[in-house]
Amino acid sequence: MAVRHEVAHLAHPQLFTPRLDASVAFFTDFLGLRVAGTDNDTVYLRAWDDYEHHTLTLTARSSAGIGRTNLRAASPEALGRLVSALEATGHGVGWRDGEPGFGPTYVFTDPDGHELGVYYETEWFTPGAETRPSLKNQAEARPGHGVGVRRLDHVNFLGRDPRANRDFLTDVLGAHTTEQIVNDDGLIAGAWTTFTNKGYDVVYTRDNLGLEGRLHHIAFAADTRDDILRACDLALEQGVFIETGPHKHAIQQTFFLYVYEPGGNRIELCNAAARLVLAPDWKTVDWTQAERAKGQAWGLRTIESFHTHGTPTPEEIAREG
Amino acid sequence: MAVRHEVAHLAHPQLFTPRLDASVAFFTDFLGLRVAGTDNDTVYLRAWDDYEHHTLTLTARSSAGIGRTNLRAASPEALGRLVSALEATGHGVGWRDGEPGFGPTYVFTDPDGHELGVYYETEWFTPGAETRPSLKNQAEARPGHGVGVRRLDHVNFLGRDPRANRDFLTDVLGAHTTEQIVNDDGLIAGAWTTFTNKGYDVVYTRDNLGLEGRLHHIAFAADTRDDILRACDLALEQGVFIETGPHKHAIQQTFFLYVYEPGGNRIELCNAAARLVLAPDWKTVDWTQAERAKGQAWGLRTIESFHTHGTPTPEEIAREG
Amino acid sequence: MAVRHEVAHLAHPQLFTPRLDASVAFFTDFLGLRVAGTDNDTVYLRAWDDYEHHTLTLTARSSAGIGRTNLRAASPEALGRLVSALEATGHGVGWRDGEPGFGPTYVFTDPDGHELGVYYETEWFTPGAETRPSLKNQAEARPGHGVGVRRLDHVNFLGRDPRANRDFLTDVLGAHTTEQIVNDDGLIAGAWTTFTNKGYDVVYTRDNLGLEGRLHHIAFAADTRDDILRACDLALEQGVFIETGPHKHAIQQTFFLYVYEPGGNRIELCNAAARLVLAPDWKTVDWTQAERAKGQAWGLRTIESFHTHGTPTPEEIAREG
Amino acid sequence: MAVRHEVAHLAHPQLFTPRLDASVAFFTDFLGLRVAGTDNDTVYLRAWDDYEHHTLTLTARSSAGIGRTNLRAASPEALGRLVSALEATGHGVGWRDGEPGFGPTYVFTDPDGHELGVYYETEWFTPGAETRPSLKNQAEARPGHGVGVRRLDHVNFLGRDPRANRDFLTDVLGAHTTEQIVNDDGLIAGAWTTFTNKGYDVVYTRDNLGLEGRLHHIAFAADTRDDILRACDLALEQGVFIETGPHKHAIQQTFFLYVYEPGGNRIELCNAAARLVLAPDWKTVDWTQAERAKGQAWGLRTIESFHTHGTPTPEEIAREG
Repeated sequence: MAVRHEVAHLAHPQLFTPRLDASVAFFTDFLGLRVAGTDNDTVYLRAWDDYEHHTLTLTARSSAGIGRTNLRAASPEALGRLVSALEATGHGVGWRDGEPGFGPTYVFTDPDGHELGVYYETEWFTPGAETRPSLKNQAEARPGHGVGVRRLDHVNFLGRDPRANRDFLTDVLGAHTTEQIVNDDGLIAGAWTTFTNKGYDVVYTRDNLGLEGRLHHIAFAADTRDDILRACDLALEQGVFIETGPHKHAIQQTFFLYVYEPGGNRIELCNAAARLVLAPDWKTVDWTQAERAKGQAWGLRTIESFHTHGTPTPEEIAREG
Repeated sequence: MAVRHEVAHLAHPQLFTPRLDASVAFFTDFLGLRVAGTDNDTVYLRAWDDYEHHTLTLTARSSAGIGRTNLRAASPEALGRLVSALEATGHGVGWRDGEPGFGPTYVFTDPDGHELGVYYETEWFTPGAETRPSLKNQAEARPGHGVGVRRLDHVNFLGRDPRANRDFLTDVLGAHTTEQIVNDDGLIAGAWTTFTNKGYDVVYTRDNLGLEGRLHHIAFAADTRDDILRACDLALEQGVFIETGPHKHAIQQTFFLYVYEPGGNRIELCNAAARLVLAPDWKTVDWTQAERAKGQAWGLRTIESFHTHGTPTPEEIAREG
Repeated sequence: MAVRHEVAHLAHPQLFTPRLDASVAFFTDFLGLRVAGTDNDTVYLRAWDDYEHHTLTLTARSSAGIGRTNLRAASPEALGRLVSALEATGHGVGWRDGEPGFGPTYVFTDPDGHELGVYYETEWFTPGAETRPSLKNQAEARPGHGVGVRRLDHVNFLGRDPRANRDFLTDVLGAHTTEQIVNDDGLIAGAWTTFTNKGYDVVYTRDNLGLEGRLHHIAFAADTRDDILRACDLALEQGVFIETGPHKHAIQQTFFLYVYEPGGNRIELCNAAARLVLAPDWKTVDWTQAERAKGQAWGLRTIESFHTHGTPTPEEIAREG
Repeated sequence: MAVRHEVAHLAHPQLFTPRLDASVAFFTDFLGLRVAGTDNDTVYLRAWDDYEHHTLTLTARSSAGIGRTNLRAASPEALGRLVSALEATGHGVGWRDGEPGFGPTYVFTDPDGHELGVYYETEWFTPGAETRPSLKNQAEARPGHGVGVRRLDHVNFLGRDPRANRDFLTDVLGAHTTEQIVNDDGLIAGAWTTFTNKGYDVVYTRDNLGLEGRLHHIAFAADTRDDILRACDLALEQGVFIETGPHKHAIQQTFFLYVYEPGGNRIELCNAAARLVLAPDWKTVDWTQAERAKGQAWGLRTIESFHTHGTPTPEEIAREG
């Protein structure tokens, strides 16, 4: 059994977009991220309270979807232990290096084929004069425009088998499953896992199309529910597509808004209020199909596209051959 | 006795600023107003939900302070009645015209010498393509940056004699006094008057320096208290001077933040929650000195500069001779 | 043409409920109203910032629905003029008196048969020691429990012909139509009218069942959008049925939550932000069917029951014979 | 060097109060805690989202102040290692047991003499029918009244030597110092330490009166900043003494309100927005005296009593002899 807190947190997932410029505009103008650097067909973006070099990696590609999701180890020793455990699973790919902002990264895949990486060395962000924060305990000045999301919150993968992926995270990486959907036939239809005191960092929900390695969404944390209501108004004015929300999830009780970025990837804006999972032996909450059928916390029906849309889309997959 | 609702609302007060460019930057970058036009040393600015051509007139001048404050009459007939009443007071100055966006304006002064004007004809604002709102029942798109105040809220004049000014507004223009400060010796130290269902539109507070025609502040309405908390963070990041707040006034129960714009004028950001004065025979609330000594609603002590700072400053008045 | 502002505001509508005790519990425990008095099968309830004796009249009856909705005239003279105008329409019923808290009331009906009344004399509310407010400019202490709505906001009638009802309000009572739904065939499917600076006080929407004199909902104003999010959580905990929301209407841009009280009447909790209609010549906003088909402001589909549920229900009407 | 995350979280501190009934009323009526049990002169209280038996222990005593503060170990093994480390320091007192809701507790003191305890075994809370939550992933129904704080947030001790206390927490218990005040002469005037991903769990600030074992305040987390503004209004109506706030701390950027409970102990209501300390190697932020002199984040001056009031008070200490 793996040890809790050896993975410190999730870091800078990579999104693929067939419309790089439009996607960059979405993340900067609407969400309020800043460009931290560019490199050929990749743009590195950062949220204002991220202590690392960047928060998100955007790479031009013919189809949307998710590339590598990184995890920061809690210490050099933890990194060593995690790599040993990963190597033993047969899911290891090998060491990679050279991306801006963080050091040697051991790359591996989850059972569903999503690419992950774990590293320890990182470059602490130092703001330039024009984005120096007024308070020294935050990484960078809050932007004066857009939603102004504070940080990455979580990644929600689609997977053919959430149970296998869940077990991989918990058994090998020390994640803890805080909530899950258990169908009447015992199938795990969704699993919410955490490395931290947050309710969840990595989620697997079942890919109803049976495809492999797809993304349901990545999420950014806003400070308040009011920030998310304001994001609704900004989305409306700026022509950002709102898929569903604002509303509150029954699972994890997150206040949410789902939008699509121009590349087609689903992006969540979320606020968890003051909810934390502090119990070291938190009892996993199992939701039944009947409970799920009640909709979201305040009664909103889950819309159909939420069960089907993922990236890459079937059309993109077919096109790529 | 004048008739209620003949004055429909307050409109586009004129502020003087010795630092026009810096003041324009404050109102656009921080508050989120847009430039509606410029004319020599004057810049017209508008809030996104104002149906008129502009919301604020900023004019370069060697000293800060307030120029003319306009009032829109409820109808052409109401304008006629108001002008007759004003002419009878001896405070009339005469008709003026030629400013962009509104028509012939009868100019007059209050007993303290502040310039006011009343007009009816106005030009309904039509947004260009780039600021067209998504919802047709608002004047212009919400800005994606800054505080994004919705509209002008009120003007707070300093006056040597709030009672005389209050009586002028109520007796001649049909305002209603909703709240006031009555000192133990009977002196009216402040009077809050309204033309509308808002708690107040025009306020007179006593000029403790005994000067004439000065401004305490003008105020803009934000949609939520959370917008005002966000404004605090933006002010902090952008170097805007916060004089006091956020807190809630006991008088009128307004949630407030006071900042200074670069020209030296005090600007309030306010939110009145859902509070309206709907009673046609609202009983004026008298606050005693003892009650005022308790501070603001939640206990904040009123800071000294709030009792002394006004524009133009004594230094500016002395310099101008 | 009637004069604006002769009707000062809407007051204490009467709701019928077949479950009086449960309805009273809903309005007191969940909404946070207080009982102002009882009289046989009627309970008078008040919101904490209402200056009058009561805000809502709840009467036991075999079917749900709305009884009389009152309007306070702006002055005794305005009352006289309104009554003369009403008498001339043939919709007058006559003078009534004897209800607690307000004086002689001229009763009439709208073209759809809803009962209305207009009065001037009223009893200003005086709180007892246990609900005396800390700030003297509010009517009564805020309740420490429930949603704590501040005041009545509006009444939304169902009507066979919104146009005729709208014209009655505007032509006879001086209301102004701020927004309306105009179907492609010219039919007015909904009309939002105001007596005040609020965006709307009385709404008529088309009764798709073709019934007469029914209620769509009455609404109470909460101070903030956050109060309404909190109301969602309270509704969830207390078993209050949420029909739809929270979300933002495109029409009037109101942030809303719709629930059903135990008697079956739909109740809205609303927040209008700082939006006011101050223009005396506000241009009525016409919404087309195509625009309405887009759903609410942030994309929520209008749920079916919103188009069909009203009180009394067809079942109740059939049962009453 | 101690290992991070061996202490899972802070738990159920004990407050002494000379006015037990009034204190219980404050915590239940105003804060919205529920009584979990009573035992002679002690009342156990719980916040609605606490998974343990109780959140706060209130004990009648002639003077105010803080009794034992407990820490839950992350596992039985972690408990063993922590106890060994504590025994080695000479600060150990010994094992205690018998309080409701949690198991054997190793009691010790910090260098300043505050009593602490560490335990692992705990009883997961099971709500009765009347407080069963609608969502199964929360411990108990949200209360419909009062502030409705979610959970304990932190304890702020006064100490003669914050540095020694800080080192004890970090070296022996694995806490991490996230921020601190370093006076010009090198003295540590305050230290904020965390066991979790929260910015802080235990704070030591210098006792300017040079007394030993006193309390500055304990804090409860509310979900939103709006909850705290609403708490201000409730405090005003209910006669709860507000010492300072609402405002935002520069240190840790917490949105705060400080009140006194009837026994004299200072209680903070706080909201940390979405701010978390996820970096495993977070660089301690040192604040200088000059930086502290600027006041709180948005400019509020720190009021004098904040530097002097603690419990027990000097008068209580003198009286007790």
